[in-house]
Amino acid sequence: MSEQGLLTPGSFRAAGTVDDRAVADAMVRVELAWVRALAHVGAVDADRADRILASCADWTPDLAAIGAATEAAGNPVVPLLTALREQLAPADAAVIHRGLTSQDVLDTALILLSADALTRVRADLGAACAALARLADAHRGSVMAGRTLTQYAVPITFGLKAAQWLAALLEASDEISAILATLPVQCGGAAGTLSLAGELTADPVALAEALAGELGLTWPGLPWHTERRAVTRIGDALVATCDALGHLGADVATLSRPEIGELREAAVAGRGGSSTMPHKQNPILSVLIRSAAMQAPQLGAQLHLAAALAVDERPDGAWHSEWSALRRLLELTVTAASQAAELAAGLQVDVDRMRARATGAAADLLAERGTDGDGDPAAYLGVSQTFVDTVLARLPGGGPDHA
Amino acid sequence: MSEQGLLTPGSFRAAGTVDDRAVADAMVRVELAWVRALAHVGAVDADRADRILASCADWTPDLAAIGAATEAAGNPVVPLLTALREQLAPADAAVIHRGLTSQDVLDTALILLSADALTRVRADLGAACAALARLADAHRGSVMAGRTLTQYAVPITFGLKAAQWLAALLEASDEISAILATLPVQCGGAAGTLSLAGELTADPVALAEALAGELGLTWPGLPWHTERRAVTRIGDALVATCDALGHLGADVATLSRPEIGELREAAVAGRGGSSTMPHKQNPILSVLIRSAAMQAPQLGAQLHLAAALAVDERPDGAWHSEWSALRRLLELTVTAASQAAELAAGLQVDVDRMRARATGAAADLLAERGTDGDGDPAAYLGVSQTFVDTVLARLPGGGPDHA
Amino acid sequence: MSEQGLLTPGSFRAAGTVDDRAVADAMVRVELAWVRALAHVGAVDADRADRILASCADWTPDLAAIGAATEAAGNPVVPLLTALREQLAPADAAVIHRGLTSQDVLDTALILLSADALTRVRADLGAACAALARLADAHRGSVMAGRTLTQYAVPITFGLKAAQWLAALLEASDEISAILATLPVQCGGAAGTLSLAGELTADPVALAEALAGELGLTWPGLPWHTERRAVTRIGDALVATCDALGHLGADVATLSRPEIGELREAAVAGRGGSSTMPHKQNPILSVLIRSAAMQAPQLGAQLHLAAALAVDERPDGAWHSEWSALRRLLELTVTAASQAAELAAGLQVDVDRMRARATGAAADLLAERGTDGDGDPAAYLGVSQTFVDTVLARLPGGGPDHA
Amino acid sequence: MSEQGLLTPGSFRAAGTVDDRAVADAMVRVELAWVRALAHVGAVDADRADRILASCADWTPDLAAIGAATEAAGNPVVPLLTALREQLAPADAAVIHRGLTSQDVLDTALILLSADALTRVRADLGAACAALARLADAHRGSVMAGRTLTQYAVPITFGLKAAQWLAALLEASDEISAILATLPVQCGGAAGTLSLAGELTADPVALAEALAGELGLTWPGLPWHTERRAVTRIGDALVATCDALGHLGADVATLSRPEIGELREAAVAGRGGSSTMPHKQNPILSVLIRSAAMQAPQLGAQLHLAAALAVDERPDGAWHSEWSALRRLLELTVTAASQAAELAAGLQVDVDRMRARATGAAADLLAERGTDGDGDPAAYLGVSQTFVDTVLARLPGGGPDHA
Repeated sequence: MSEQGLLTPGSFRAAGTVDDRAVADAMVRVELAWVRALAHVGAVDADRADRILASCADWTPDLAAIGAATEAAGNPVVPLLTALREQLAPADAAVIHRGLTSQDVLDTALILLSADALTRVRADLGAACAALARLADAHRGSVMAGRTLTQYAVPITFGLKAAQWLAALLEASDEISAILATLPVQCGGAAGTLSLAGELTADPVALAEALAGELGLTWPGLPWHTERRAVTRIGDALVATCDALGHLGADVATLSRPEIGELREAAVAGRGGSSTMPHKQNPILSVLIRSAAMQAPQLGAQLHLAAALAVDERPDGAWHSEWSALRRLLELTVTAASQAAELAAGLQVDVDRMRARATGAAADLLAERGTDGDGDPAAYLGVSQTFVDTVLARLPGGGPDHA
Repeated sequence: MSEQGLLTPGSFRAAGTVDDRAVADAMVRVELAWVRALAHVGAVDADRADRILASCADWTPDLAAIGAATEAAGNPVVPLLTALREQLAPADAAVIHRGLTSQDVLDTALILLSADALTRVRADLGAACAALARLADAHRGSVMAGRTLTQYAVPITFGLKAAQWLAALLEASDEISAILATLPVQCGGAAGTLSLAGELTADPVALAEALAGELGLTWPGLPWHTERRAVTRIGDALVATCDALGHLGADVATLSRPEIGELREAAVAGRGGSSTMPHKQNPILSVLIRSAAMQAPQLGAQLHLAAALAVDERPDGAWHSEWSALRRLLELTVTAASQAAELAAGLQVDVDRMRARATGAAADLLAERGTDGDGDPAAYLGVSQTFVDTVLARLPGGGPDHA
Repeated sequence: MSEQGLLTPGSFRAAGTVDDRAVADAMVRVELAWVRALAHVGAVDADRADRILASCADWTPDLAAIGAATEAAGNPVVPLLTALREQLAPADAAVIHRGLTSQDVLDTALILLSADALTRVRADLGAACAALARLADAHRGSVMAGRTLTQYAVPITFGLKAAQWLAALLEASDEISAILATLPVQCGGAAGTLSLAGELTADPVALAEALAGELGLTWPGLPWHTERRAVTRIGDALVATCDALGHLGADVATLSRPEIGELREAAVAGRGGSSTMPHKQNPILSVLIRSAAMQAPQLGAQLHLAAALAVDERPDGAWHSEWSALRRLLELTVTAASQAAELAAGLQVDVDRMRARATGAAADLLAERGTDGDGDPAAYLGVSQTFVDTVLARLPGGGPDHA
Repeated sequence: MSEQGLLTPGSFRAAGTVDDRAVADAMVRVELAWVRALAHVGAVDADRADRILASCADWTPDLAAIGAATEAAGNPVVPLLTALREQLAPADAAVIHRGLTSQDVLDTALILLSADALTRVRADLGAACAALARLADAHRGSVMAGRTLTQYAVPITFGLKAAQWLAALLEASDEISAILATLPVQCGGAAGTLSLAGELTADPVALAEALAGELGLTWPGLPWHTERRAVTRIGDALVATCDALGHLGADVATLSRPEIGELREAAVAGRGGSSTMPHKQNPILSVLIRSAAMQAPQLGAQLHLAAALAVDERPDGAWHSEWSALRRLLELTVTAASQAAELAAGLQVDVDRMRARATGAAADLLAERGTDGDGDPAAYLGVSQTFVDTVLARLPGGGPDHA
């Protein structure tokens, strides 16, 4: 969470995912996995590796000290290493990190954080999808006005609207699953040749694979210090998730306007109030989800820009410009997905108001038809039902959960 | 091409891909495919359909007239339709477009343009990859200094550098292929229910599928008027392509600095000169490719932003904010990929200078090793060879083309 | 206009401002002003200068030829120069451009285009302000619901709302005026030292000042090839203008929703219709203005990014990444300002509906007050009147024009 | 500082400026200034006001509690208020915040933070300018190669290069000063009418002015809840500052490349080292400054986007999307300006290497001249001296400080 969350409402939902403690812990995890990987390929004695791992088992990095020294080192790995080595006898200390470069450690640590965050996002998308599926199914006959460019179009059902939100979240979830299945370890050494690792073992690629295995990541075949699609792919999926959530948030916020009043967030004591107006019930989850969707594209662009400006074997600033944006994008999406799950689960639908409005606006809603129908918007719904079915069939279980 | 290309150097390489003529032609193609689809499902007589298609076969839209009327309509489909219908007898004119909404036509038209542009990009990436594969293979033993954060790191080979560029372009190409295989038709009618289409045929979904089939696109199961992942996925892949090209451009530009002089763009008469300095040989393709990479992230963010701000069944401005950005991003990437293919094919490598520098900087390049080696950078290349092999094995044919 | 405007609705409003013809004409204007400046300081005979100017007076650059050669040169100045020199005897041709670098010419040309575009924007802002001032004044007593986070807040007047829009446009206009007063010429020669100019005259700075004078620009004291605040300042002002217009567009679009119906764009035959729904009256100007506001920030960021990535005496791609973004941002803002002037002039205000809604929602609108008032929203308007007066007093003439 | 700074190297330089503690303190400061302002206009007894102020004098908000409740309230003001009121007797508690809205408090608090951050930035720009002025003056005769599009252009002096950096920083500093002089208070009440304030005093505008006076801010004449130029102007100036710093950083990084070696950051024990390569001396300040410059444009765009998407009297998410971006942009610029001051003060200039290279490349550097000169680059410097003088004359004291 961005500190205590005063300027990032709801970031408590991402607590422990991307804060400096999580970063430091992940870096330690990578360094220790490297020790195990070295032992695995025989580059370090098993006894020594065990001793190192035991010595570090309870160690907690001093974040303030590492943070203060990050600038001089250019990244947090160097000061973390210094502190980590102080836990060990000199001969053991020399083993730690040997063969890696700072970027191997930090990139892999950020991948581990991303894995955690993406897993959380996917779980919340799953919860949101379950709730939306129930809404889509329950409201497949709930007629409402379709609206385009702010004006009445033809009738739709609220079930179809929920199904459209659902389709987008299912797609986002699938994309995240695909990414989670192939998150790569970073392992290249000083300039991407595994040069020093090659002094430690005859098969440094096996060592890289062992590192990946220790961390539950994949070995992508070669390092990616300057080819950042692994990072931008995560970013793109997160932004796309926020895009999908943004439509949900905007629709709920719009349909919660008092003049429309067809949807309403669940009333929660103390939520959505005003500092001055006692009657206020702001659609605060929708507003915050929408706000997240407004922020994500710039953060995703920052990751691409870092990728676009890579140069040499490791670049002169582009890599550094990734860190803060990736962290914020992870936090933002974890938060928004959690808010969306809650929003979807509690959404109040005013079916009567929807129908009354559709009936009142029937002349407009049926104008396209251009014939004398019976004037009932419910008789002009096209394949709304089919589309609802199409989306529900995409659910992991093949349909909505009615439990 | 952005007009004549005075402010978009090299956009002649994208001529005919995304200009207004291409947009209009694609819209006509969609409208006529719809007529054929209507005939296919029996909603229109085959005779009538043939007559309509014949009447429009040689028709060329008046771009100036359509452009001038685009604002009032909010999009170019309405004025195009008006003009198109004037080619037909009234009864036939009424058939055209019936059941579609403007967004169906423009979205599908932009997908068709994207298909063309992505196909061009992939072809040029293929050419660039072939050239880079030859370089990677030929220079697997060409030692050079590795550089990180601008300073000497450990030795690498130029073959490995070329292989890293190649790996990124192969990945971009694969991504584009995956997208090309699933480009979706847009077909939803006024508010995404196929309402009017449902008046024309018992199975409007079959009609939508027929439209997709006529255009060589896929039917995604439901319309995506407000769920824009189809567009942002194209955008993300284009930006990622430019990112990958950006690293290539930056490396060539840097290594072409006269103080380094290890690479050089092919000399082409009249290229890279100066308006005032006769000796100048600017690495102009690299500079322009790099410039494209600096522009793409903002354009991709624009597409995501449009997706994030969707509301209702069709939104109040977000959709409109996509068009210009998508067009420019397509043009930019087609141009940059073409430039990169030419750059890679003609790249001049000064192996002697690379080796001399590596030898001169051996003390630095070998400092990591920390032992008394023989002082030869070529003896400290880690698994550079293996990584080159790994990348070459990913080539479609399984290896570089030595023809 | 972006070609014929099929994907840039309303860009006919910016016709001739930023297209390739305007770019070429401005470059010629700069080159000829340089000839006059050279004559002014005595570096060229007045006769020769007159002869050159006479020879070029009727010359029209061949845009297609220049565009095709722009890539090889890296910018359009070199091919333009080649063509321009062909109009002249060799001895005269050698005078043209001598002492300048390409960037001097193109930067100055883009400043000239900016001057034209900013002047147009300011005129349209002036028209919009006049209309909004009349609305603010006329509706200072028109009570309506205030809305925050989509929900009812306390009552306001429509006059105050119009005054807030007006205040923002007045500020944008003032900022544009300040920029117009100090638009700088670019004049530095090959690397910003006026090296070759120094061979032509004893006082090259006077020559630069003369160039500025010829073009109605200011001489900023030194060249700004790599210090791009002159460009980003224009960009920031344009984006801020679009921001201000965006609020106007969003408010009108929202208040035009049929469920609210308090505002309405002027009905114009053929505008805002649908390709399928005959009743539709989309608030198309608002939608397009809002769409512009969604696009401007990314374009402004592109200009800053180019500025941030400058290196050396002239950079390796950053400069090139400015051109297309600046052009598009100018076009977009000229278009949006013109649309806003028309929107404001024709805005339909439904005072009865405003009042009826405010009365109906009085319980909510007056909840803040927390006392038993008379239940009349018009009695709880705070200093709405004063704020209207404050804004009207900022008008150039000190008040609204009631003519 | 973003937590401990592990992912924001050097953010300790901004410690206390923008963290949650600073946000909370500033909000308290605004709430208490409001009490004083109420007393000032006689809306609250002086005794009561003193008692309130005394009761809150030593109060420290519990950030964790406030942060946790921020989401439900939609902003941190509501929970802060609740906690603040618990410090007071009920009758006094009712006075606190009365007449304000949450946005008044948070906007003003963020302006106070901005004031602090801008003041720090200006001070560091001043230090950087002093150092650059000394360099510009000392090296007005230090010939070096000019470089454009990566290649040799004509000769320049290092003094001129330093003067160009200086000119940009002076301009940024002037802009910041102008902004600091007019930072506005936010004061509008629930919907920008000062409705409730109007119940407390006959002249609510005087109350708003009193609030501004208490906080050392200006009263802009009306509230700006949805007209965000005050925020985007701060953002634009910060981005422009980072742009200017980016050129400095890029030039130092480039000229520190070992093959060029004309500049070098001051050696500082422990700085710029590598986790694996003992010889490494990375130009880490330059790299981090450059990285900041790559990040600022997206953050500035976020602020504009929030401004562009305003709607109603207070918007549905746009405002919320400002906070995190503004905070990060402030932190980033404070950090980068401080790093730049240190970089400039310690910059090592290798005059001999500059001259040797210029001499070695004389044929290229003098090619423009096109005549047989004496082959001395120092004889072809144009008005480099004049330009240095021009910039130095802009220094506040009218020249460099030689102390």
